[in-house]
Amino acid sequence: MKAGAVDDNGQALSAVSLPTEAYKGQDHGLERMCETIRLAVAKAGLRQEQIAAIGVATPGTMDIPAGVILDPPNLHPWRNVPVRRHIQETFKIPTAFQNDANAAAYGEYWIGAGKDAHSMVLYTLGTGVGGGIVIGDMVLEGEHSHGAELGHVKIEMTNPRQCGCGRRGCLEAYASATAVVKRAQEALAQDGGKSSLHRVLQERRALTSRDIFDAAASDALAARIVEETAFYLAVGAMNMMHTIDPDIVVFAGGMIAAGEPFLERIRHHVRELAFPVPAAKTQIRYALLGNDAGFIGAAACGRQLYGASK
Amino acid sequence: MKAGAVDDNGQALSAVSLPTEAYKGQDHGLERMCETIRLAVAKAGLRQEQIAAIGVATPGTMDIPAGVILDPPNLHPWRNVPVRRHIQETFKIPTAFQNDANAAAYGEYWIGAGKDAHSMVLYTLGTGVGGGIVIGDMVLEGEHSHGAELGHVKIEMTNPRQCGCGRRGCLEAYASATAVVKRAQEALAQDGGKSSLHRVLQERRALTSRDIFDAAASDALAARIVEETAFYLAVGAMNMMHTIDPDIVVFAGGMIAAGEPFLERIRHHVRELAFPVPAAKTQIRYALLGNDAGFIGAAACGRQLYGASK
Repeated sequence: MKAGAVDDNGQALSAVSLPTEAYKGQDHGLERMCETIRLAVAKAGLRQEQIAAIGVATPGTMDIPAGVILDPPNLHPWRNVPVRRHIQETFKIPTAFQNDANAAAYGEYWIGAGKDAHSMVLYTLGTGVGGGIVIGDMVLEGEHSHGAELGHVKIEMTNPRQCGCGRRGCLEAYASATAVVKRAQEALAQDGGKSSLHRVLQERRALTSRDIFDAAASDALAARIVEETAFYLAVGAMNMMHTIDPDIVVFAGGMIAAGEPFLERIRHHVRELAFPVPAAKTQIRYALLGNDAGFIGAAACGRQLYGASK
Repeated sequence: MKAGAVDDNGQALSAVSLPTEAYKGQDHGLERMCETIRLAVAKAGLRQEQIAAIGVATPGTMDIPAGVILDPPNLHPWRNVPVRRHIQETFKIPTAFQNDANAAAYGEYWIGAGKDAHSMVLYTLGTGVGGGIVIGDMVLEGEHSHGAELGHVKIEMTNPRQCGCGRRGCLEAYASATAVVKRAQEALAQDGGKSSLHRVLQERRALTSRDIFDAAASDALAARIVEETAFYLAVGAMNMMHTIDPDIVVFAGGMIAAGEPFLERIRHHVRELAFPVPAAKTQIRYALLGNDAGFIGAAACGRQLYGASK
């Protein structure tokens, strides 16, 4: 769990993190959350009375308007956890609740890569693929808190890859860091020992997506995996350009360490895939806020409780 | 070209249509548009002074905020046609301009299938697949007038069908009426003369999607094409349920003559494809306004010029 005190300009005055220890149950989890918040306030040299609002962002299935985490597979055994009410009653401070990828999107929209945009689509690339959509200062939560579940848009029917969500053909099954590793392992099983990644795998017993991106400059198999990943992400970006048609599509997460050349490959494929007008006009960029996007965005949601906008 | 006088409750007081004759050029086209509007007003027994606003909706690439049709392939040889300005200056009445599928969506949202919804996604099924998205009374136009180009979301990578737009793997290449006919013809070329559709094709020299839907009750090949169409439309619906997460997904166009059993097959596939919460809660329905949705929706856009909402 990560928390920070954030000022009205989106500057983080502190950043702290504590292990969630989800297995200890939800009461422990909620207390942890409060503890993380207290630490962030103290570390910023502030008193609690100086905090105007709290924003909390979490992963998992949720009811955003109710402020409740429903049944998160990654926070087992939590269930129907009234996060917002608990935080608000504990601190007696107005509290906003949001999905973590939505919050990260709103953070980037507020002061990051989307600072000058009217609308933005964010993809977060990690073990999964998350999404966030902001249109004119409105976070697209959806009517059932499933807005912008962009990792689970189906992009393949004929030979669909199995997704972690149980479905098939989802973008996440192609373009998450986990999927990059899986696709590389499949390719390695077929290449007759040629790739340099075999040695990495032997030494470390496991590959990371970073290994694959690092090898791409000098290894044909790794280069192909990376190039295909750029294509899949371009399909995702293009699909949103034909749906939301935002000012900017932003990619966030560990994979963006691959730098400008990878982004340029995504842009290349977008130009081939999308209609000419959005292909020419929609910006495609990396996120700017790194790991702080979540709590900065959550803070921005807290600000919205007072009617504040970008 | 179709026009109607519409009252403040969305009731059509008249409906007239004139051939566009696009080949005669854009000046003729604009005059035709004005003539159609005058006819609609007269047929409703109204005087021009009684018209509070005009709404115009057209297909093709456009700049919606500017009110200009750019370079519509289906209205050749029109180019950069300042539709809104022309209509507004001719009639001296405030005029709104909108994409035709967006307008149809807003019409259904106003008084049709989405009347009770806060947000809605519309698919129009014809020679192409159009789309419209409305969220809380806002038509999602996009930043470059490419919002809700839902026929051109890519759903297939391995073996992507050629789309009329020049791209591959678009939903439209699978689920438009044109695509239904094409898929049936391909299947007929392979079935060794078994299907009853061979006889229809021989008699009429051409198949329509209606022929295929009509034959589905008693013909295995036709039944398979229809079932696959339901699946493709469910993929489209589900992708929007994981992006927009609307209250309702609405299907419009000639194909909805297939009736409740076809809609039930779409719903069946959506339940298998989508996350449990949207699968259980998102309504999936047919449009209610038929061919009038376009001008009723355009009228609704005119109403918005006065700040009116649903």
